[in-house]
Amino acid sequence: MTINPQNLLERLIACPSVTPEAAGTLELLGRELEAVGFAVTHLRFEGEGSYPVDNLFATRGTGGRTLLFAGHTDVVPPGDLQQWTSDPFVPRVTDGKLFGRGAADMKSGVAAFVAACSAIPESAGTIQLAITNDEEADAINGTEKLVRWMADNGHHFDFALVGEPSSAETLGDSIKIGRRGSFSGVVTVKGVQGHVAYPHKANNPLPVLAAILTALSTTKLDDGTEHFPASNLEVTTVDVGNPTGNVIPGAGTLKFNIRYNDTWTPETLANWVRAQIASVDAKGCAVTFQVSGVPSRSFLSPLSDDIDTLSDAIEDVTGRRPDYSTGGGTSDARFIAQYGPVVECGLVGPSMHKADEHIAITDLVGLTAIYETFMGRFFAVDMS
Amino acid sequence: MTINPQNLLERLIACPSVTPEAAGTLELLGRELEAVGFAVTHLRFEGEGSYPVDNLFATRGTGGRTLLFAGHTDVVPPGDLQQWTSDPFVPRVTDGKLFGRGAADMKSGVAAFVAACSAIPESAGTIQLAITNDEEADAINGTEKLVRWMADNGHHFDFALVGEPSSAETLGDSIKIGRRGSFSGVVTVKGVQGHVAYPHKANNPLPVLAAILTALSTTKLDDGTEHFPASNLEVTTVDVGNPTGNVIPGAGTLKFNIRYNDTWTPETLANWVRAQIASVDAKGCAVTFQVSGVPSRSFLSPLSDDIDTLSDAIEDVTGRRPDYSTGGGTSDARFIAQYGPVVECGLVGPSMHKADEHIAITDLVGLTAIYETFMGRFFAVDMS
Ligand SMILES: [Zn+2]
Ligand SMILES: [Zn+2]
Repeated sequence: MTINPQNLLERLIACPSVTPEAAGTLELLGRELEAVGFAVTHLRFEGEGSYPVDNLFATRGTGGRTLLFAGHTDVVPPGDLQQWTSDPFVPRVTDGKLFGRGAADMKSGVAAFVAACSAIPESAGTIQLAITNDEEADAINGTEKLVRWMADNGHHFDFALVGEPSSAETLGDSIKIGRRGSFSGVVTVKGVQGHVAYPHKANNPLPVLAAILTALSTTKLDDGTEHFPASNLEVTTVDVGNPTGNVIPGAGTLKFNIRYNDTWTPETLANWVRAQIASVDAKGCAVTFQVSGVPSRSFLSPLSDDIDTLSDAIEDVTGRRPDYSTGGGTSDARFIAQYGPVVECGLVGPSMHKADEHIAITDLVGLTAIYETFMGRFFAVDMS
Repeated sequence: MTINPQNLLERLIACPSVTPEAAGTLELLGRELEAVGFAVTHLRFEGEGSYPVDNLFATRGTGGRTLLFAGHTDVVPPGDLQQWTSDPFVPRVTDGKLFGRGAADMKSGVAAFVAACSAIPESAGTIQLAITNDEEADAINGTEKLVRWMADNGHHFDFALVGEPSSAETLGDSIKIGRRGSFSGVVTVKGVQGHVAYPHKANNPLPVLAAILTALSTTKLDDGTEHFPASNLEVTTVDVGNPTGNVIPGAGTLKFNIRYNDTWTPETLANWVRAQIASVDAKGCAVTFQVSGVPSRSFLSPLSDDIDTLSDAIEDVTGRRPDYSTGGGTSDARFIAQYGPVVECGLVGPSMHKADEHIAITDLVGLTAIYETFMGRFFAVDMS
């Protein structure tokens, strides 16, 4: 039995699975996977101050090499419905394009991979799927717990594909072999409040805060690496909230975010921030620094035969080898990278999260072919 | 007929004249002044976006030199009544101290001056009183309009006394011969909003804002003068209000206040601020600067025989000549200074605006004696 990717994608789009509502997507996927020989486990994770999330793990085969495919079925809300030409949860085909929320990000990647699996013999090797319904929001009870559960239950892998829309303009023009990390922090400077007419009785924290802001935003972190641009810090807000024009404020706060490459860890970055703060004369103010939330680690998958094989498969289908990119925001691939090499390879991204999100149907067919060709070589199947 | 200053002060405190409620104070004063020969004019000013305010102008005598006394009958609210030992609007005498809201600031100054006038013969010269009930709040329909009305109606003066509590620790230890000006402004830096993962598509305004803050707060305005400390700028707030940790903000704002001496005017200060802004590389951001509200001009009354005479009177009463101060915030004297020399001479200030505001009754008697002695010499009356 083979699965048609467009048909499966249309049925997935028809489930309004705005995070964290699975809305039937994981049941639908589970049935399709069971029909082509997978053992399916539904896993609900909860706690850590976030909402409960439905996840799906599927595995087929017991021997040979192991390929993990990871992705998500949740979608961002449709936003202003007036901006959509038609209902975002009713798939619509026009001029060879398929419209609907999740068409690009990333029900298409899931549909293409499941369809590709249906063409690979069960004896080829081990295929795993780790699908979450919480990538677009908290991501606390999703992929991170799912891959930990896999490791705890002996489900290891040799190579992982994430089906996020990694292509920039045309299918396969780019795959992501790494992602920058993300590190956020808060710096608070406390002085002594007072009246502007009596500055000697006060100690204004704002000149110190400005000097720290300058040190943080003008000191170079690094020059970039072969695969990553230079790490970059942006101060995202400065807030004092003093409504009174004749009062010297007692404290001020700045927040920042660093997107960083694989020359840094959250620990070395925290030390770098402390060094910038220490380089500023605090003039008697108390300066505190706190990391905000849990930093996302950067990762870089080592160039390998498997990445070559994926590039070969893309070249076979599209006529062009992909660029190796590490651009963009963070993705769930960072959680997978803790357990093994991972590459993101999916459809063309620009319409994601927007109104009238769509893909070209030929791209969906092409991605299915890329996944199938890659698996044939990864498992050394005789596809003739 | 002579007036007892303590009796008058107690009756003034009994009127709960929290700005802008005159609560009978000006009627009471008017009757007292008429009883000792003054012609009294009640003037209600309104408009300019502020509440209507009652003011009083009184004049006695037609020849000789002219002395203006200025002050206010309004008081700040009592605040938390639990902090007061007794009702703030019921005068209470304990251990030689008189307690009540306005005891120091500045119903005592008014009472002492009116009492002193009652001891000066009408023929001595011309005495004017300009009393407002709006010094503690907007000050829009108060002294500024009152002294303009005086000028418009031919009521000029040779020398002005303001009865604000000018003494620091003991009666007469200090008189104020000038006041710093106050100048506030807002600087906004606009860049281009964007996502922290794509800084090349954005232009973060906050490093530019920090550089402007640094230029404003670390560049010396001046070294001070013989009578004034150095002018001083304090940044009072910086606000961006960006709640989203992965967004580079589009704009940020800082507000500042400058307390400045008589080497500056609002116009030269605005140019100085523009020069500081121009010294910073705006990196493609749009920087705007606006003056906030109406700046208070600085003033310095030239040292004169009249100031010497006032110092002599203080020395006669207290045994010590006063310091010439220009410290503290702004006062209504800045409006009077536009028309003639003005000096602030009043009671001991530290309890003003606080719970259990009070004065020493001996100080009230002493201030009355200072005013009376000064007037005797100012008008060259034979007091023997
Ligand atoms: Zn996605
Ligand atoms: Zn006052």
